[in-house]
Amino acid sequence: MALTEQANRKSEAGGDVAADEAPAGAATIYVCVTCRKAGEPDTEPRPGALLAEATASAAQGSGVAVRRVRCLANCTRGPSVAMRANGSWTYLFGGLDIGGAAALVEGARLLAGAADGIMPWRGRPEPLKRGLIARVPPLDFQEETP
Amino acid sequence: MALTEQANRKSEAGGDVAADEAPAGAATIYVCVTCRKAGEPDTEPRPGALLAEATASAAQGSGVAVRRVRCLANCTRGPSVAMRANGSWTYLFGGLDIGGAAALVEGARLLAGAADGIMPWRGRPEPLKRGLIARVPPLDFQEETP
Repeated sequence: MALTEQANRKSEAGGDVAADEAPAGAATIYVCVTCRKAGEPDTEPRPGALLAEATASAAQGSGVAVRRVRCLANCTRGPSVAMRANGSWTYLFGGLDIGGAAALVEGARLLAGAADGIMPWRGRPEPLKRGLIARVPPLDFQEETP
Repeated sequence: MALTEQANRKSEAGGDVAADEAPAGAATIYVCVTCRKAGEPDTEPRPGALLAEATASAAQGSGVAVRRVRCLANCTRGPSVAMRANGSWTYLFGGLDIGGAAALVEGARLLAGAADGIMPWRGRPEPLKRGLIARVPPLDFQEETP
């Protein structure tokens, strides 16, 4: 596991990424509004709803779109967020809190500016490193072999 | 958490899903070929590569496409697979083994046939219930509020 992650980070960090060349408006952040941390009591508003509100505020004027969604099915590792930009990979993050709102917007801008559709590891905000859940290739993805 | 999952399953199970009405060819399964179970020794071929091979075999003649991918960044809960169909939500599964190949193809057919783009819980193969990692809305997703 460690080796795979390390290799992945290395390849992401090593990419020659042209950040900020694409319009940030190409990026969308999906915030789960029903999420709470596993094992924590049920409070209203839900931590996910607060995160959505904070992210929408942080995104104002950035061109990054924020969409509320009821469930990303990452319930054991919420609060949860997905993001993608035009033609990029889709990223899923978990274990976020309201303090991660600015990190999400910065991550979305990095992703929108990445020529290869991969969010660079270098310069990626810390909550989007430790909170990485998974990533999914874009629709036009070409098969890779080891 | 339990409540959210339960509600989610209920809504999925309750959906009036027209399975098999869409062509299964609309579905694509992405199998991570570098995955192994966390904590297990590094063996070649990797369990993910074996799963990809088994899934490609199981998909023959089904119209479901299978694509190998190097890393879905779900390393702590592999072996990992993503799938989607035209306009559907994208699903991520983990903790799979080679015995899950047929379940993946069946899940992809269910997803391709779901009019609402949601994989029905009822009738979903067991490995795709216990192995659910997350799901991501489609590109044309409209915001939901609680």
